[in-house]
Amino acid sequence: MQIDSIASAERAGNLFGYPLMIKSKRLAYDGRGNAVAHSKEELPSAVSALGGFDRGLYVEKWTPFVKELAVIVARGRDGSISCYPVVETIHKDNICHIVEAPANVPGRIKELSVDVAQQAVSSLEGAGVFAVELFLTKDGKVLLNEVAPRPHNSGHHTIESCYTSQYEQHLRAIIGLPLGDTTMKTPAAIMYNILGEDEGEPGLCLANQLISRALSVPGASVHWYGKPEMRKQRKMGHITIVGPSMNIVKARLDQI
Amino acid sequence: MQIDSIASAERAGNLFGYPLMIKSKRLAYDGRGNAVAHSKEELPSAVSALGGFDRGLYVEKWTPFVKELAVIVARGRDGSISCYPVVETIHKDNICHIVEAPANVPGRIKELSVDVAQQAVSSLEGAGVFAVELFLTKDGKVLLNEVAPRPHNSGHHTIESCYTSQYEQHLRAIIGLPLGDTTMKTPAAIMYNILGEDEGEPGLCLANQLISRALSVPGASVHWYGKPEMRKQRKMGHITIVGPSMNIVKARLDQI
Repeated sequence: MQIDSIASAERAGNLFGYPLMIKSKRLAYDGRGNAVAHSKEELPSAVSALGGFDRGLYVEKWTPFVKELAVIVARGRDGSISCYPVVETIHKDNICHIVEAPANVPGRIKELSVDVAQQAVSSLEGAGVFAVELFLTKDGKVLLNEVAPRPHNSGHHTIESCYTSQYEQHLRAIIGLPLGDTTMKTPAAIMYNILGEDEGEPGLCLANQLISRALSVPGASVHWYGKPEMRKQRKMGHITIVGPSMNIVKARLDQI
Repeated sequence: MQIDSIASAERAGNLFGYPLMIKSKRLAYDGRGNAVAHSKEELPSAVSALGGFDRGLYVEKWTPFVKELAVIVARGRDGSISCYPVVETIHKDNICHIVEAPANVPGRIKELSVDVAQQAVSSLEGAGVFAVELFLTKDGKVLLNEVAPRPHNSGHHTIESCYTSQYEQHLRAIIGLPLGDTTMKTPAAIMYNILGEDEGEPGLCLANQLISRALSVPGASVHWYGKPEMRKQRKMGHITIVGPSMNIVKARLDQI
């Protein structure tokens, strides 16, 4: 629901209850562009934390979820649709920390997730890859969180784990080639984001230790983005580990 | 055995019998730089087909083989050695046509192949990836054919099928990083070379049809080298198909 004044925010609060999630329509990612009002009194400060109403704000009912899931959906220029396996995304301080593929949820939840993701993409236009982020609630409901119309952090693992990576799939989709096979060629994959720490030379930080250890771990692939400077909590790279089971890839990640 | 005159070629013929394989020490690949003399009388023409003795010639005893195998071996700067699974290479007109990974040979032959490959690389210096080509004889012997000190056609499949591709492995080896895991992450892979046909526009040839069909085949990845011109029998690209069994990837290749 859109809001454009404190009065309309208060009406939304009456409708949805508190805490109330307030979101910016633009430049919202990694927790940026989101603010929570725990009561009517907090509405003005939450709105001003988001830069005021000028940037375009809307509210969502607060969702207590048990897991966050994601589905990468590709739509070709001919309208054909193809979904990747459902993954679980584990966030820390609102930033994606780990992605597990496939998600450890019952088959019914996987089907439901794919349904919701396909519906979400159907309501949008355009060819290419879309990342659909979902909430799984305690009572087994799957709710739409957000859609990113592009290759996405939750699909990085596909480079090593799937027959067609999300990047190749995006190219196939926008060029008008047939969509590729989205199934996994390894039983399990785990993706770990390397986040920036305090300012400083990248050469001296934990990232280098992670990378150096990862080079000796079977099935681990290091991706370093070569960003010109490190900033705290900035995504500097990621490590994907593929292997014969989720327990094994988790154990390999623990080594790193 | 080196030869530098027709007289020494004849001595080699007496020693090894005919047919006798004559090889050039340089610029020998895809059947180029090889000539066969079926009798003493054919020696002069075979030698002159190779450009005469000035280019450096040697002879090998003719080997009737039942299969050609290959092993990619990596040696790190610290001397550590790592071998990829043994593959079968299927040639047509002396040019690699298809590579099947893993090779369909008994475990004993695989061990023997890895032994011979490691021995061959041990006798050479330098860090990096070496491709060791082998002959399997009817009586179960594994003989060294040749060694290419570089990433090689017989290892192209590793891009999709192994935890570490031969290219990443080569970089790890020469930079001094730990060698990566060489095991296959898919049960089977088949690589098909796209060879140039008669002169002409690449856009009009069979290659485009192959690529176009491959795009719809699960587990198929097309690699097109972008060479500036097509020449008959020139390697223009390749297609790798990975999947759950050799029968399945062969069937998928048949579709293409």
